[in-house]
Amino acid sequence: TQSLKDKGTERKRKLFYSRELFVLTYGALVAQLCKDYEKDEDVNTCLDRMGYGIGIRLIEDFLARSAVKKCRSYSETADMIAQVAFKMYLGVTPSVSCSSAAGNEFSLILDKNPLVDFVEELPAERASLCYCNLLCGVIRGALEMVHLSAEVTFLQDKLKGDAVTEIGIVFLKNTEDKKHKRNK
Amino acid sequence: TQSLKDKGTERKRKLFYSRELFVLTYGALVAQLCKDYEKDEDVNTCLDRMGYGIGIRLIEDFLARSAVKKCRSYSETADMIAQVAFKMYLGVTPSVSCSSAAGNEFSLILDKNPLVDFVEELPAERASLCYCNLLCGVIRGALEMVHLSAEVTFLQDKLKGDAVTEIGIVFLKNTEDKKHKRNK
Repeated sequence: TQSLKDKGTERKRKLFYSRELFVLTYGALVAQLCKDYEKDEDVNTCLDRMGYGIGIRLIEDFLARSAVKKCRSYSETADMIAQVAFKMYLGVTPSVSCSSAAGNEFSLILDKNPLVDFVEELPAERASLCYCNLLCGVIRGALEMVHLSAEVTFLQDKLKGDAVTEIGIVFLKNTEDKKHKRNK
Repeated sequence: TQSLKDKGTERKRKLFYSRELFVLTYGALVAQLCKDYEKDEDVNTCLDRMGYGIGIRLIEDFLARSAVKKCRSYSETADMIAQVAFKMYLGVTPSVSCSSAAGNEFSLILDKNPLVDFVEELPAERASLCYCNLLCGVIRGALEMVHLSAEVTFLQDKLKGDAVTEIGIVFLKNTEDKKHKRNK
């Protein structure tokens, strides 16, 4: 069994390796967008939009392979994103907390964010950049494909000096909610 | 042992999963560059340049973790790229063939290119795009950091209707060779 265990460890390491190229490529993408757009807000919007496009395609892959059952509550959905999806695609498991009495607002707390492995800190002139904003778009796009509208944003970011990285997910109960939220 | 085997398969699947997000993000990067640059040649150059920047950082990670020994020939180096580096970062192992009597030109042949998993075909107006050109830059950059100059280009591409995808690596014996090659 020792050799089988070794093989397991080896596979785990390989999984980790395969992430490096992704993380560096993501860095190149963000750098390109910073060249393209002067305003941080425009880079953030662009990353979110790209992520959305990725999310609506990734969900199919996720559902087909993970064979997870339909979630029966927002809370189950948030857990699924953290414990299955993040684990699967990024190799980390954020902790989840519910942050509203209404039960539709959740936080994913990341102690370690693999996407910033090669980033020391944001340049001073890019203080408003949400470096990992692609992730918000991915979550939003994937949720939309299972008929859940949500607003997904970074609430805290270690890159900006916060203690942890926190992604906020607000599930919107219906289209009207969403319009209301968007317009305010 | 059945359950251990299952765990192995599961891990293998997870390795594959983690690639999906990378492949889709890479697609978003190429799409962005196609928006930025009208000419395919400019997109290709940009992808190669980005790849170079990634390669010079990735090599450190590669050497630190793979614990491979110093290669004693171009042939060993080409095998290392195919059998260790490609396997590690992309989960595929290209076959290698030497294509010059001088022993400094090699081809990496990919039957399956994971980077194009989500690409059906290139749009008609992007016929000269080397979609995966980032990989050439990554190899070139990584080699340069171990004091090997090389020219790395796509010789065949399934996306363009070729039977296989073929990456050509020409090791340049010294700086003069390189200048000569570059200027011709």
